[in-house]
Amino acid sequence: MTLYLLSLLGVAVFAASGALAAGRKGFDLIGVVVISAVTAIGGGTIRDVLLDRHPIFWIADPLQLVVILAAAALTLVYVRFRKPPWTALLVADALGLALFSISGARIAEQQGLPGTIVVVMGTITGSAGGVLRDILSAEVPLLLRHTELYATAAIVGITVYLLAQRGGLATTPAALLGMGVVAAIRFAAILWRLRLPVFQVPDEG
Amino acid sequence: MTLYLLSLLGVAVFAASGALAAGRKGFDLIGVVVISAVTAIGGGTIRDVLLDRHPIFWIADPLQLVVILAAAALTLVYVRFRKPPWTALLVADALGLALFSISGARIAEQQGLPGTIVVVMGTITGSAGGVLRDILSAEVPLLLRHTELYATAAIVGITVYLLAQRGGLATTPAALLGMGVVAAIRFAAILWRLRLPVFQVPDEG
Amino acid sequence: MTLYLLSLLGVAVFAASGALAAGRKGFDLIGVVVISAVTAIGGGTIRDVLLDRHPIFWIADPLQLVVILAAAALTLVYVRFRKPPWTALLVADALGLALFSISGARIAEQQGLPGTIVVVMGTITGSAGGVLRDILSAEVPLLLRHTELYATAAIVGITVYLLAQRGGLATTPAALLGMGVVAAIRFAAILWRLRLPVFQVPDEG
Repeated sequence: MTLYLLSLLGVAVFAASGALAAGRKGFDLIGVVVISAVTAIGGGTIRDVLLDRHPIFWIADPLQLVVILAAAALTLVYVRFRKPPWTALLVADALGLALFSISGARIAEQQGLPGTIVVVMGTITGSAGGVLRDILSAEVPLLLRHTELYATAAIVGITVYLLAQRGGLATTPAALLGMGVVAAIRFAAILWRLRLPVFQVPDEG
Repeated sequence: MTLYLLSLLGVAVFAASGALAAGRKGFDLIGVVVISAVTAIGGGTIRDVLLDRHPIFWIADPLQLVVILAAAALTLVYVRFRKPPWTALLVADALGLALFSISGARIAEQQGLPGTIVVVMGTITGSAGGVLRDILSAEVPLLLRHTELYATAAIVGITVYLLAQRGGLATTPAALLGMGVVAAIRFAAILWRLRLPVFQVPDEG
Repeated sequence: MTLYLLSLLGVAVFAASGALAAGRKGFDLIGVVVISAVTAIGGGTIRDVLLDRHPIFWIADPLQLVVILAAAALTLVYVRFRKPPWTALLVADALGLALFSISGARIAEQQGLPGTIVVVMGTITGSAGGVLRDILSAEVPLLLRHTELYATAAIVGITVYLLAQRGGLATTPAALLGMGVVAAIRFAAILWRLRLPVFQVPDEG
């Protein structure tokens, strides 16, 4: 129950960040709603399609769509009067990433899949929505560029979650530990501008 | 039967509009065929994948692909001799949107899904093909930008279709009414340049 | 068994070409791994989702992901010391295209699907990974532009494979013949710059 409420919060945060991204591109109302929805539920949708889990989570629970609409509308109203709270949004986005990554990993785990696939599915759940948002905005996904550890935070956190369980920790504390690691790495990366090395290949000519 | 013929007509129209879009980007023959196919059957494919309907409609009925090839070929030949009939295409595209939106909604309805999901699935069926076309052309999807009510027309028309049924109307007249509303809104929007408000968020700095 | 080893080789080659493409865009390590993976297994993933084949091949066999990581890492190390072997890569890519197209076609064939769908599924298996790679790089897919016969090579090779079987040839020699045709057309196209005609439509105005 708490987990469900937390996941709705994650959906709301991702939807708000999607609405702001759409606003920066000058999209219209439909564009804002589409980008909000894709950012919020795109990762979980890809996970469900790849794992053949039907009905897909938001088809089974349309409340998700209501939360997205409400979050997008609130964002629209809020920025009429004040500047977007960028710092609060970064914090909320990191928590959303932590929550979605670990909950996505648990879903793959419950299907008895091996560790590599659990890490991949958790990472997709947490970060593919943002990739779809960038593709729809005709931009190179932030995730692929030289950004402050995003997918990396998810990968490390999920790995810690899996190892903690193998080390004997129960699922719930292991999940909390994993989420903490994801959020901590992301926060640290933003604070100290930690990035992965860039890889440059010269053009063919 | 009539509905099936109408849907093939919708596929042909969307394929022709895809071929013209590919031509404006200077794609080669394969590019034209791929864009035609993606525009024509992309929306229905995403709907079928999300709803776990297999075999996907065009795998179950390869005639769809034949119609796409024929429509793309005819378009190629036609524009060698004459200017593309832009106005006729806009009209045909609006009819295709109307047809696909309502038929997609009916498919979701037959699976016993709630109203919100029916509206979403109908809108995806009608408009996601054009979004895929734009993504493949590396352009910001027309749907998200400041365009004349497109997804909006689908959303309103499907809602009218659902409400008309709850109000006691039989499925067929309700479907015709819904299609009429979709097409009418789209026509009106093109004629009088009706658009949704744009939502602008200043950049972070 | 040999076919399985060959398919892992195809995955490795496509992953290496993806890593180089990511390097030319200046992506970071995660970007390189994501683009490698998408290039290598994107086509087969789309095929499996469209055909409702679960578990998807790389979920059933995570060794595929290990091969991708190894190939991307080797590529990263190699280009630190030497120029990328562009010609060898073009040859390897053509072999990968040949292998994936025919193996994708065989999978569709085993599901009893008609010839058109077999050709489409084989072509998607061989070439959709590269399309996803280009979309993630925010570029117009090479496949759609004026490139040296790529999808065309797959389409002709798969058709030859199907016709050879109907003409009485056993599956294995027919498959080898089909792969040979794909690779030969692609090699010839690169050598003599064979391209499909471009289709130009003037803009609306």
